[in-house]
Amino acid sequence: MNAPIQWGAATAWSRGPIVTSPAPDRNTIGVPAGTYATYRALAVATGDLSPNHRPDYQDTQPAVSIGPFPQWRDKAKIVTFDPWGHRTAQDFRVDIAAGRNLRPSIAITTGHLAIAEIAQAVQQGALRSDGKVLLENNEICVTKIAIEPVWYLPGIAARLKVDEGAMRQALVDHSGGMYPELMTRPDLKLFLPPIGGSSVYIFGDPALLGQSHARVTARVHDECNGSDVFGSDICTCRPYLIHGIEECIRGAQAGGLGIVVYNRKEGRALGEVMKLLVYNARKRANAGDVPAAYFQHTCAVAGVEDMRLQALFPDVLHWLGVRRIWKWVSMSNLKSAALLAAGITIDTQIEIPAERISINAQVEITAKIASGYFSGRL
Amino acid sequence: MNAPIQWGAATAWSRGPIVTSPAPDRNTIGVPAGTYATYRALAVATGDLSPNHRPDYQDTQPAVSIGPFPQWRDKAKIVTFDPWGHRTAQDFRVDIAAGRNLRPSIAITTGHLAIAEIAQAVQQGALRSDGKVLLENNEICVTKIAIEPVWYLPGIAARLKVDEGAMRQALVDHSGGMYPELMTRPDLKLFLPPIGGSSVYIFGDPALLGQSHARVTARVHDECNGSDVFGSDICTCRPYLIHGIEECIRGAQAGGLGIVVYNRKEGRALGEVMKLLVYNARKRANAGDVPAAYFQHTCAVAGVEDMRLQALFPDVLHWLGVRRIWKWVSMSNLKSAALLAAGITIDTQIEIPAERISINAQVEITAKIASGYFSGRL
Repeated sequence: MNAPIQWGAATAWSRGPIVTSPAPDRNTIGVPAGTYATYRALAVATGDLSPNHRPDYQDTQPAVSIGPFPQWRDKAKIVTFDPWGHRTAQDFRVDIAAGRNLRPSIAITTGHLAIAEIAQAVQQGALRSDGKVLLENNEICVTKIAIEPVWYLPGIAARLKVDEGAMRQALVDHSGGMYPELMTRPDLKLFLPPIGGSSVYIFGDPALLGQSHARVTARVHDECNGSDVFGSDICTCRPYLIHGIEECIRGAQAGGLGIVVYNRKEGRALGEVMKLLVYNARKRANAGDVPAAYFQHTCAVAGVEDMRLQALFPDVLHWLGVRRIWKWVSMSNLKSAALLAAGITIDTQIEIPAERISINAQVEITAKIASGYFSGRL
Repeated sequence: MNAPIQWGAATAWSRGPIVTSPAPDRNTIGVPAGTYATYRALAVATGDLSPNHRPDYQDTQPAVSIGPFPQWRDKAKIVTFDPWGHRTAQDFRVDIAAGRNLRPSIAITTGHLAIAEIAQAVQQGALRSDGKVLLENNEICVTKIAIEPVWYLPGIAARLKVDEGAMRQALVDHSGGMYPELMTRPDLKLFLPPIGGSSVYIFGDPALLGQSHARVTARVHDECNGSDVFGSDICTCRPYLIHGIEECIRGAQAGGLGIVVYNRKEGRALGEVMKLLVYNARKRANAGDVPAAYFQHTCAVAGVEDMRLQALFPDVLHWLGVRRIWKWVSMSNLKSAALLAAGITIDTQIEIPAERISINAQVEITAKIASGYFSGRL
């Protein structure tokens, strides 16, 4: 048996390994990459995947070293994932060599991004290539990070200001009985929920992370597949994401750091079906699709305006050692309030340039500004 | 109690309503929008969402009528979602008015897409606006559909050629005990797995769906967030998606139909952490990142080359009434084999134009072609 997990301990080793099912000494509920557990199970059922497969982590270690930062040792600051998750193969080398199936929950690589809008911005003189952050061929050099959720339940409950037992009960009751162990195994404090994780793109020298003099430009973007991938013009998601990437490039070129975080929280964590139902209700309303009714339509169908639980998102910035954001590329009042509550300061908040808002997205942006979104135009 | 579900029945009513937890007469395991159930539960725990909320479906009905098509009445053809899922509010109006909490699992709206690469293609003369499919402002008119999974387990097992009981056991065992009812309630034949769903974009007149004379251009694209959103140049995902959209526009402009399906199966359904670990292993290999070792690296880390279960994807084309694809914009041999097995014929298969493959993506595409990918260049 493992000793109980010491969340927030000074090292991964003193914290203890995160051991997942089907290990007999597991200390977690759920499995890694939970939203793909169903596919993994079927791959075992069809015989394509051996249930006894042990990953070979040769050469998979992070392409860039990140941390540890003091924030990792504060058990209240990072509760939604394992801050040591990219170092599993290194920190628990001996255990893995001995046959334990310990898995990284974070992966870090480097890469080049080719984005049509960025190439256009160069062409129009709004950005210039510097051969380092932005190459001559208009490709952007980045550090790419993928993070899977690992929830420390006492910390999640404290962050959301709810009782841990009541939260566990809700998780079972409102998921149709998914993971009954949330109730029957209160001794297991870690939960790997089947929700999407986060991707992080770092612009500039990652060695600047955690350095108090580094000027950080950041955008934390919640998934909107229809806009982010397909350019749907009913919202400003992709235009604002691109704007964030541009600002991150500029910040890195000026010797600072750019950070874009992409969270899988489609349609305010209501999902895409719900989002499209709301679109229809908005467009068909007798009064027309007007800003005043924007949030009402979401509430009528979904029962809530938003389920993203923004109190949880600052963890990734703590993990990156960020204490102060020089340029915060976001208008969301929910997000800036969450940063403030997390003790991360914002020097300047930047709204989306007006010319990037399509005619069809005016309803959304006007409604959001009326409800408290940051805007220099007010 | 409900009568047992008659999957493949001629109408939603004769099939029976799909009733989800917490209804006492539920006939399903799992909950709608499963990957967001965790957020929904926390929204209840925090008091933001009433557990008794009943959605108001006023004005949410499909913006475009789709089906029914004969394929909906074949219980083997559509097993991964509810073909009547967009009509819940209409087909079960009386039940919902009486207070039953029945939920649509499909939503259909219309929209406009603004995509930088498409605007460039117009500028370069590769595409022309026609004021209907592609507007003067370069925006594309589409029908947008979001589909959540509803698995008919006997049909899934038959499709994958596995025993239903063994499959249920694997689903419990390899998810860390998620939904033990998969074993204890063999009478419940429907499972709403917590996996991402599909988005569909239709170009051209959706009234052509199901018409045998309509020339269909189609691409079925599996999520690759790093490329689709951020333009990562290590693969051809976004370039090929854009190519598919271009072909769909051309097909629709010529009086046919274009269909793009986007499935949430990141990194071949292995997840993004696994994908980035494999990237690192590829780049650091002694022999360099070479096509011959491309699939080996994935197998070494993940234990399997691919977990997407392509046998399941044709359902959405059956649902759209497609029997024959005029232009199939895909090189995947796994996907074309799945279409063949599903009885959908392909007239022409189209590979990605060579000039759209970045230098860094050459390893991947060469490895895939060597392993059986379609290519006119061979």
